[in-house]
Amino acid sequence: MIKAGIIGATGYAGGELVRILLGHKNVEIRWYGSKSYIDKKYADVYRNMFQLVEDACLDDNIAELSRQVDVIFTATPQGYLASVLTEEILSRVKVVDLSADYRIKDVSVYEEWYQISHRSPQFIQEAVYGLCEINRDQVKSARLVANPGCYTTCSILTAYPLVKEGLIDADSLIIDAKSGTSGAGRGAKVPNLFCEVNENIKAYGVASHRHTPEIEEQLGYAAGKEIRVSFTPHLVPMNRGILVTEYAVLKKMAQSDGSYAYPSYEQVRAVYDKYYAKEQFIRLLDREVCPETKWVEGSNFTDINFKIDERTGRIVLMGALDNLVKGAAGQAVQNMNLLFGECESEGLTFVPMYP
Amino acid sequence: MIKAGIIGATGYAGGELVRILLGHKNVEIRWYGSKSYIDKKYADVYRNMFQLVEDACLDDNIAELSRQVDVIFTATPQGYLASVLTEEILSRVKVVDLSADYRIKDVSVYEEWYQISHRSPQFIQEAVYGLCEINRDQVKSARLVANPGCYTTCSILTAYPLVKEGLIDADSLIIDAKSGTSGAGRGAKVPNLFCEVNENIKAYGVASHRHTPEIEEQLGYAAGKEIRVSFTPHLVPMNRGILVTEYAVLKKMAQSDGSYAYPSYEQVRAVYDKYYAKEQFIRLLDREVCPETKWVEGSNFTDINFKIDERTGRIVLMGALDNLVKGAAGQAVQNMNLLFGECESEGLTFVPMYP
Amino acid sequence: MIKAGIIGATGYAGGELVRILLGHKNVEIRWYGSKSYIDKKYADVYRNMFQLVEDACLDDNIAELSRQVDVIFTATPQGYLASVLTEEILSRVKVVDLSADYRIKDVSVYEEWYQISHRSPQFIQEAVYGLCEINRDQVKSARLVANPGCYTTCSILTAYPLVKEGLIDADSLIIDAKSGTSGAGRGAKVPNLFCEVNENIKAYGVASHRHTPEIEEQLGYAAGKEIRVSFTPHLVPMNRGILVTEYAVLKKMAQSDGSYAYPSYEQVRAVYDKYYAKEQFIRLLDREVCPETKWVEGSNFTDINFKIDERTGRIVLMGALDNLVKGAAGQAVQNMNLLFGECESEGLTFVPMYP
Amino acid sequence: MIKAGIIGATGYAGGELVRILLGHKNVEIRWYGSKSYIDKKYADVYRNMFQLVEDACLDDNIAELSRQVDVIFTATPQGYLASVLTEEILSRVKVVDLSADYRIKDVSVYEEWYQISHRSPQFIQEAVYGLCEINRDQVKSARLVANPGCYTTCSILTAYPLVKEGLIDADSLIIDAKSGTSGAGRGAKVPNLFCEVNENIKAYGVASHRHTPEIEEQLGYAAGKEIRVSFTPHLVPMNRGILVTEYAVLKKMAQSDGSYAYPSYEQVRAVYDKYYAKEQFIRLLDREVCPETKWVEGSNFTDINFKIDERTGRIVLMGALDNLVKGAAGQAVQNMNLLFGECESEGLTFVPMYP
Repeated sequence: MIKAGIIGATGYAGGELVRILLGHKNVEIRWYGSKSYIDKKYADVYRNMFQLVEDACLDDNIAELSRQVDVIFTATPQGYLASVLTEEILSRVKVVDLSADYRIKDVSVYEEWYQISHRSPQFIQEAVYGLCEINRDQVKSARLVANPGCYTTCSILTAYPLVKEGLIDADSLIIDAKSGTSGAGRGAKVPNLFCEVNENIKAYGVASHRHTPEIEEQLGYAAGKEIRVSFTPHLVPMNRGILVTEYAVLKKMAQSDGSYAYPSYEQVRAVYDKYYAKEQFIRLLDREVCPETKWVEGSNFTDINFKIDERTGRIVLMGALDNLVKGAAGQAVQNMNLLFGECESEGLTFVPMYP
Repeated sequence: MIKAGIIGATGYAGGELVRILLGHKNVEIRWYGSKSYIDKKYADVYRNMFQLVEDACLDDNIAELSRQVDVIFTATPQGYLASVLTEEILSRVKVVDLSADYRIKDVSVYEEWYQISHRSPQFIQEAVYGLCEINRDQVKSARLVANPGCYTTCSILTAYPLVKEGLIDADSLIIDAKSGTSGAGRGAKVPNLFCEVNENIKAYGVASHRHTPEIEEQLGYAAGKEIRVSFTPHLVPMNRGILVTEYAVLKKMAQSDGSYAYPSYEQVRAVYDKYYAKEQFIRLLDREVCPETKWVEGSNFTDINFKIDERTGRIVLMGALDNLVKGAAGQAVQNMNLLFGECESEGLTFVPMYP
Repeated sequence: MIKAGIIGATGYAGGELVRILLGHKNVEIRWYGSKSYIDKKYADVYRNMFQLVEDACLDDNIAELSRQVDVIFTATPQGYLASVLTEEILSRVKVVDLSADYRIKDVSVYEEWYQISHRSPQFIQEAVYGLCEINRDQVKSARLVANPGCYTTCSILTAYPLVKEGLIDADSLIIDAKSGTSGAGRGAKVPNLFCEVNENIKAYGVASHRHTPEIEEQLGYAAGKEIRVSFTPHLVPMNRGILVTEYAVLKKMAQSDGSYAYPSYEQVRAVYDKYYAKEQFIRLLDREVCPETKWVEGSNFTDINFKIDERTGRIVLMGALDNLVKGAAGQAVQNMNLLFGECESEGLTFVPMYP
Repeated sequence: MIKAGIIGATGYAGGELVRILLGHKNVEIRWYGSKSYIDKKYADVYRNMFQLVEDACLDDNIAELSRQVDVIFTATPQGYLASVLTEEILSRVKVVDLSADYRIKDVSVYEEWYQISHRSPQFIQEAVYGLCEINRDQVKSARLVANPGCYTTCSILTAYPLVKEGLIDADSLIIDAKSGTSGAGRGAKVPNLFCEVNENIKAYGVASHRHTPEIEEQLGYAAGKEIRVSFTPHLVPMNRGILVTEYAVLKKMAQSDGSYAYPSYEQVRAVYDKYYAKEQFIRLLDREVCPETKWVEGSNFTDINFKIDERTGRIVLMGALDNLVKGAAGQAVQNMNLLFGECESEGLTFVPMYP
């Protein structure tokens, strides 16, 4: 039995971790950490857990926690983990960090976009970026996993094969992302009130959202060079779900007759299949079917498809996932499974809920 | 392995049956019946099932189906099952009917409220009303289970202990029910369009909804007499969930000192505990906590609580469930588990999804 | 030109007052009071007002304000107006109070339900309860109008004629009310976050909501005696709208042949017509049509209908209004029109917006 | 008094025309045309109109209608108006067509994208594209106005000044558009059911939506050359509103010191001001403020802003409007005002409703 502790168990991602781990055969949650609700019954914070979780919330003493469990999940504000992580902790437990603290290898980029001084840059290099489908092997032997962001997971997975294989000009990539409101967290802020979000859609963080450098770094590895992308997030009046619509200039390929032409549907599809055909949590949809967030709701799936537009010389890529599952807690558990040699999909075989 | 067939697999209740049965250890779905989508891939009707269900839809030939499976679920329009059910079918398979055809023992009441002539009244008597918490033992040995309606399950479970023990005047019962829109089905009708339902609430079927006689019959058994209740359903702009708010005149009880007084919180609570304390799928909430539909979303739970109002001499009862799970497919699987000697909760231990 | 000042202009009711008054021919808003946003441009708080309102927010100095305007609207927390109102202010301006401070004549009832000590009970008697359709004449000559609550307006208007004419037993009245979320205000609280309200319905304040005594007092005047009602509010995932479903024991009436029987549809309708046929803002719907909140959205209408249920001896009453218009700001302007001899509907002839 | 007739009065755009025209001082609606609801009371189709509209629906006999009114609005399926319009009709009345029949000057482009054969191409040349802010003068003297599409209005207005002045490379333009569901019409189709749209977002019509050639034609006039754009519409779970997010390569401009550099915020803003500063229905938001659909809900405004992204050499443009008002019925009335010499904003000065 893997003993798990969660710091930040009362945010939405933390709550989703609890939901998922309760159904995992080999995990026992030992620590529901929540600075805001210390000593309050967890099921009084999330009443869906009534009679399912009897524990009260504990503090965020990670040193003490590291002596009691095998794995720690941190679903905490930016900078928290960086400020408390020590070699001693890492020598005792595995850590899966749902914050951004160890996602970006260049500490100056992190500090610029997050406007925080990084308190433990010495762990950045060893941290593995936990996008399982791409970094599976490195995750298995890691001590510290930087669990990717929700927008990031969706944005990268949707474009990765085409960037990796050079079918598109990576610098032409424009990512227009739409997110449900749980991505904004459970903090009590006026812009997240029901009446402000309902019947409304808006862009925010235009040309300045913090997930941008994370996408650029990871897709840059795939491209084999530094890249710059446009990324615009939008807030959508729904609880869960991220949809990305990505636009890129399609490169002409040498065809069998020696001429250059845009790749065919089959050629692009073959590239996707090369990377994802065997992936359990990535579904390449049938031709002409556009992903919808509801088809993945509550599950760990990412649904992906594309449309070639020869008129404009562009390709439109689309990806959908549940921001709290594959975009946060589900991927964290997937990483934990890899870390502990569990079946990668254990606890994650939710059938999407519809409607 | 229990072989199961579904007739009406492409309605919302049918889709939920598929979601639940896919996670059941001992069930294999052999027949996705859908008259409207014959030969179409099931996963093209419900794309959440992409790569999870490979089957195409079949017709509704129940005689043929009864030779291939152990249990048939009918999630069909009123009158369908009554028009095709035969002794031969019942001799071969168990049938769990999610329609109303065998819920009401008095066929004239059925025919009056449903405005349909009943085509096989000979099976009404043997059919067991599948409200598991109340009729568990009869279900176990049944051939034909009449799976209760969504409003009905919530309305009855919420009031049952108080009616049974005589704490309230059953004829004073007023049930104000609120339902998510999936209860209206997947038929393409203008009143169910997004723009008509969203940002709107209304009552409908006032003093004439078909679930009324079903509630009256079942609570009448508990009361030991015929009763009449007021029942008003409302359509709420959300996908899932039923909330009932019930009002009844509280009877004064003889107290230990010989006087008559309204029962205390503890006395009412004790009556609920007597019936439900050991029930896995009924959660009696803590004092002063009102049920909310989101706390049970996606799960088989019914959350219940009550508030004594001495000012008016009434008690207010509240119950919440997911109309597609405990109110339809979940309860159907619970009944199937009872019919086949499975653990009653097998396949039904979903943690409610929040948010 | 009537010069108007608003204290509490940045709550939802305050914002709606601005929307309505901007369209009023004879009103000019001189003071946008908002303690939380002093010196901030009003249009930066409500960007729908961009280029429509150029003013910045001012403080809540009511004494100063009373020297600059003809009418003051207070859309403020309970107890505020009571703590600052003086004879001097009332000698200078008319006051329309959207809070509850002067709605209840019996100060002890107010203090018990609101748990506040009333700081200026000397003005309670002269305050006129501003339910225009019922107290029109008194409003015209008032200095201080207590603008009714949103739930209250809908609950009272829906039942008033039947209580007044004795068709129902007023003590049997049960009011099950459903409200959009703007009724909860613009305060940043977790329970009002989008993700908590969306896809959810719940009751709250069961047997203890503060609008109860207000309803009892006003319907008690109609009944000619003290009455007790059950009132249960519910939170619905929509921005605007209140729907009330009311249940009451219908009295048998002496019929023309000397027998006693339940009144017919026509008899009940005639009673409603007696009070409301000439009212511009009350619409008695056609037989069998149930009110829906969306049909009144954005307008000052209250839509009302009823259904006689002889089976149970009860009548079900239904009423719908927009909580921010007829339930708050619209009624406040209607009262202002009466106070200043304007056409009662001036500025209030919005056609409901659909969808 | 302008006498108006509407063909297609029971669709959502038709209903909005009624709402707007009821508030217009100089218009009287004489004909509520609706093939589906002939002889049914209009207020029984849209109950928000109860007691406001007493008329019954009439057929779509445009020849007869043209004898009774001064202006005809057609809110009809593609191809309808083209199949019935005659010189005789146009000689009697003005026609404002909300369908696409006369929007595209090149009939072969129309026929290719709409897959309909155009039945009266002889009127295409004289038809004026009714984007008032751009074609105001031509509209004034027209007989036939092609009222722009909802996506189109928002897409064009947002980019027009920058294309016209050559600040961006028009062929690099990518338009990612998000629409509320009323844009999909009131037809009873499964994909528009509440449960299918709610809690969901998807792209549709990728690289093939019919509004694409309309955008390309109009922006092509501004660019002075043929252009190709990427346009992707998305369905958002809300009733009203369109938001467009547009991406384009920003051109470097010669600066005062002779160097070439990206234009500054002030330079771009000045270009917008040149075209829109005096427009009553276009609001250029303050720097860093992103448009939101709710801020324009129910009004005829288009809110626009932009963000320069030097990192990528792109500019992000954003525009928001209410698809039923500025995107359909509001603009149609604005055109009518121009046609009849009315004040352009008569009947259109709605303050946006919030929340």
